[in-house]
Amino acid sequence: MNTENTSDKLEGIIVPMVTPLLSNGELDKKGTERLVRHLINGGVQGIFILGTTGEAASLKPAIKKELIEITCKEALGQLLVLVGITHTSVDVSMKIAKTAKENGADAVVAAPPYYFHLDQDDLFKYYIKLADQSPLPLFLYNFPIMTKSTIEPETVKRLSQHPNIIGIKDSSGNGVYYQKLLAIKKEKPEFSILIGPEEMLAQSVLSGGDGGVNGGANIFPGLYVRLFEAAKNRDIDLVNKIQPLILEISKNIYGCSPKTSSYLCGVKESLYYLGICEPHIAPPLQSVDTKAKETIVQNLEKIIFKIKSN
Amino acid sequence: MNTENTSDKLEGIIVPMVTPLLSNGELDKKGTERLVRHLINGGVQGIFILGTTGEAASLKPAIKKELIEITCKEALGQLLVLVGITHTSVDVSMKIAKTAKENGADAVVAAPPYYFHLDQDDLFKYYIKLADQSPLPLFLYNFPIMTKSTIEPETVKRLSQHPNIIGIKDSSGNGVYYQKLLAIKKEKPEFSILIGPEEMLAQSVLSGGDGGVNGGANIFPGLYVRLFEAAKNRDIDLVNKIQPLILEISKNIYGCSPKTSSYLCGVKESLYYLGICEPHIAPPLQSVDTKAKETIVQNLEKIIFKIKSN
Amino acid sequence: MNTENTSDKLEGIIVPMVTPLLSNGELDKKGTERLVRHLINGGVQGIFILGTTGEAASLKPAIKKELIEITCKEALGQLLVLVGITHTSVDVSMKIAKTAKENGADAVVAAPPYYFHLDQDDLFKYYIKLADQSPLPLFLYNFPIMTKSTIEPETVKRLSQHPNIIGIKDSSGNGVYYQKLLAIKKEKPEFSILIGPEEMLAQSVLSGGDGGVNGGANIFPGLYVRLFEAAKNRDIDLVNKIQPLILEISKNIYGCSPKTSSYLCGVKESLYYLGICEPHIAPPLQSVDTKAKETIVQNLEKIIFKIKSN
Amino acid sequence: MNTENTSDKLEGIIVPMVTPLLSNGELDKKGTERLVRHLINGGVQGIFILGTTGEAASLKPAIKKELIEITCKEALGQLLVLVGITHTSVDVSMKIAKTAKENGADAVVAAPPYYFHLDQDDLFKYYIKLADQSPLPLFLYNFPIMTKSTIEPETVKRLSQHPNIIGIKDSSGNGVYYQKLLAIKKEKPEFSILIGPEEMLAQSVLSGGDGGVNGGANIFPGLYVRLFEAAKNRDIDLVNKIQPLILEISKNIYGCSPKTSSYLCGVKESLYYLGICEPHIAPPLQSVDTKAKETIVQNLEKIIFKIKSN
Repeated sequence: MNTENTSDKLEGIIVPMVTPLLSNGELDKKGTERLVRHLINGGVQGIFILGTTGEAASLKPAIKKELIEITCKEALGQLLVLVGITHTSVDVSMKIAKTAKENGADAVVAAPPYYFHLDQDDLFKYYIKLADQSPLPLFLYNFPIMTKSTIEPETVKRLSQHPNIIGIKDSSGNGVYYQKLLAIKKEKPEFSILIGPEEMLAQSVLSGGDGGVNGGANIFPGLYVRLFEAAKNRDIDLVNKIQPLILEISKNIYGCSPKTSSYLCGVKESLYYLGICEPHIAPPLQSVDTKAKETIVQNLEKIIFKIKSN
Repeated sequence: MNTENTSDKLEGIIVPMVTPLLSNGELDKKGTERLVRHLINGGVQGIFILGTTGEAASLKPAIKKELIEITCKEALGQLLVLVGITHTSVDVSMKIAKTAKENGADAVVAAPPYYFHLDQDDLFKYYIKLADQSPLPLFLYNFPIMTKSTIEPETVKRLSQHPNIIGIKDSSGNGVYYQKLLAIKKEKPEFSILIGPEEMLAQSVLSGGDGGVNGGANIFPGLYVRLFEAAKNRDIDLVNKIQPLILEISKNIYGCSPKTSSYLCGVKESLYYLGICEPHIAPPLQSVDTKAKETIVQNLEKIIFKIKSN
Repeated sequence: MNTENTSDKLEGIIVPMVTPLLSNGELDKKGTERLVRHLINGGVQGIFILGTTGEAASLKPAIKKELIEITCKEALGQLLVLVGITHTSVDVSMKIAKTAKENGADAVVAAPPYYFHLDQDDLFKYYIKLADQSPLPLFLYNFPIMTKSTIEPETVKRLSQHPNIIGIKDSSGNGVYYQKLLAIKKEKPEFSILIGPEEMLAQSVLSGGDGGVNGGANIFPGLYVRLFEAAKNRDIDLVNKIQPLILEISKNIYGCSPKTSSYLCGVKESLYYLGICEPHIAPPLQSVDTKAKETIVQNLEKIIFKIKSN
Repeated sequence: MNTENTSDKLEGIIVPMVTPLLSNGELDKKGTERLVRHLINGGVQGIFILGTTGEAASLKPAIKKELIEITCKEALGQLLVLVGITHTSVDVSMKIAKTAKENGADAVVAAPPYYFHLDQDDLFKYYIKLADQSPLPLFLYNFPIMTKSTIEPETVKRLSQHPNIIGIKDSSGNGVYYQKLLAIKKEKPEFSILIGPEEMLAQSVLSGGDGGVNGGANIFPGLYVRLFEAAKNRDIDLVNKIQPLILEISKNIYGCSPKTSSYLCGVKESLYYLGICEPHIAPPLQSVDTKAKETIVQNLEKIIFKIKSN
């Protein structure tokens, strides 16, 4: 954990770390180590491994275990480590949570189980079960486009009463939903509310949110830290200066292809170009084509130039 | 038009005005006049009649015409008047636009046609046709949950080049989408970008948005004007003081019933309680039950008390 | 009405007639007359004008009126005439119903209002209101992908008790839903249940359904009549001989383009090629491109050849 | 494998077997054995374990392995055994496939990976990878409401060329889609096309489909076999006699509660009442309430009486 972090709540930039993979589908261990150091150097508060950006759903158990071990070894003492345990089976989630605990991670993160459609009562009982059993504090993760179930604000509020549930990452992109989450902090200020989509990072923090779990921070950790701090300091002029860069990353790096993998390839190809890790992605996602990869690099160079010129 | 408005763009609070109806389904003319005066007194910048809140889709042509006439007569010189022309038929939309023009309205507003599913090319050509034919400046209206079609940011950008298209109201609730819209202002600063969901009003204005088209301003016009101005002045402390009231209106007035009509009945029952107009709604929507109506009034009284105590 | 029709329920092939339009957007009156005669010659049981295929949502009131007049004049005594009154406003629907009645039409057809999301209680009360007021028998029309609301089987069952509600057209494509509709006939055998998607026509009739409202019958009325009769006579070998042609029309005529208008242009370009009416479609839909139109004609010729060879 | 099965394709009733669970979440082994024997006695052609009805997504690997072992031991030589390998990770799917092979199962079944949204190109490559690696023939499984991705008919057609892909189970409920699947059999008659929703079983077989994978066959295997055979023999009068019972099971057993688990509890509570296995379900699904369970039993008794009276 970052030694400057004297607060009792999660805040700042938590990077949803990609899982570096070799062309044979195994973990790129050296790349993983370099990536963690890159993020430490970027000054972020923590990392969230085995999330959507981390392709957790596509990985076999052995890779998950390796990733937890290497990442914790490299990061602990310098970064908060959150480990995704999202799965359709409670038992499988708990197994990952135990591995996370054994390796010293700080918390676990769970989106709703993503096969069956769940109602709010199902969701509530599911999270209570996880929270009761989890050996580490539990972070909620709302991402209805992927999981089919929204954790409604009322349900989040009820769950926030559980001593082992410490916050929520909202990747819905829904600005109304996010404002309703913030209302929960009135009664439990230490409940941490982080935003997924980086386009909304600044506004969420200006509203009272606690930070972001933003994919672009894999590439440019320092940029997102600066944006977070500008918003936290209510320096709207600085926010307005950085925000166009964030939108340019979104449009020109993530939006390079119509394929589902466009965002993920945007991040991984950028890291590859920067010499940090291999660019491969796991099936069932298929990589973008060569032309899209070239576009990513060209657009990345422009963004790097702008960041340096700032 | 408000005489203080020396800007060349639409900004501030534009009230999406309800259509006061009698129990026999005809227009509540006296109520309409009182409502317009209530909004003028509240200090709002303008009104948007015949939108979703105005139940335009449910009204027969004769009522639409009457409403335009009475509202323009009462409001012009003091409020901007925007008239909804959203319809599945271009010819019908243009007929309403002509009536709006004849009565001195300032602009027309059109969401995508809501029967057929339209792609971006269809939408672009549709709006160009409207903008070419419309005798008044055209405001776009994005509301995909109702119309099934999102006007993508790239399409909005292309449309913003048309001299007769002056802005967009975004009711998607999507915070990422809204940030992408704001990027259009870099090239065309006078393009007006208003937010629909009032929960997002303050944040949107802090981000550089131009204001809101917020249903609650029917009831409490002054409150929304204060919130808009606080955000415009970057007075975040004041924003944070008002925002809980906005969320309370959303939760306790609009959320009084599980029925689709819950929001609309929340607004209309509140106006009825305040002695402004009749509470009836048009089919196919059905009113909430008596218990929900009582809840609205109780919750409204609490909110009024809090506003006065502020 | 077809004189052979001695039954007291609607059955057979009811053609969801396209609305022939000139390039200036006005009604192609001569084309309309030719189309009606083409359908009479094809031996169909009736026509359904101003439905989805009829582009009702895109047409101005004057064209709707003209179409009703011309069609009724040409068709009555030889075909059942059903008139679509689907609209978001009850008053507008009733105005069309009156015109239909005045011109001698046999029934009206209404899908749910397609702007607001409606629950089953809203839908039930809406249809009771229509049925009470309608001067002609009312046919329900389930098409959730367009209207956002499904008329649930339980609601259809309750509505089927109303003396002025005579049947339902189901365009959902949902085979489970259709089987549940058929169960309603146990208690009210004269309640007519027609299928929209022509790919399901034969199976629906084998199951006990009453026929189809199938777009391809605009082009090849006789083919669909033969398929209906084969299924009604439980001549499965003949069904299996015709069914591939139906699927070929669906795939190669309707599926000629990725645009939303692909189905509609498939039908209208085919009728144009056959010398029956003009091919233009109304905004907001945009026509398919020239290449797709050429493909339609080529595929149409192949299908005509196969039909003749049969 | 059933010794009467001399055909080279899968046809008839393949039961999507529930996974009997004890109250502690472990496998109800005795119940599993009894259930398999119940199905053998019912005369079905095969069983499909670890599907949606089998709650595969909710089970830990150890239970899946046990279930495969016990089921294969009990069933082989008398029933075809298909094993679900649906998972978001290819490696995990292959591990289950190997276990299935080792235990003598006949085929594996895979729905699309259900976390990421996949396009048709992703899906095609995914299934080719599975088919290349799988030690057993692969059956496709289309269930878009659960997996978010439809395997489009054109993609199924291309996949049907792979020597290790032998058929598809369609649980979409989409009657048009099913008819398009049937067209694939023109070129590859041995490609097996089974229907998921039992309400559509008879019609699908009359259309040329090969049978059903129907949940109700867990309870009443013989009833579904009779319906399949009636349809295969084109005995429409017998079909029409059995079909109301199928709809009654659907409505009164599966539809006993508004909860997501209603269908699953309907099947498991029925089996419990019949003394076959324990009724428990795995989280994240929550069981229906006591009242719903009582309703299931009452409705079940009525259905049993009707079946016996037939």
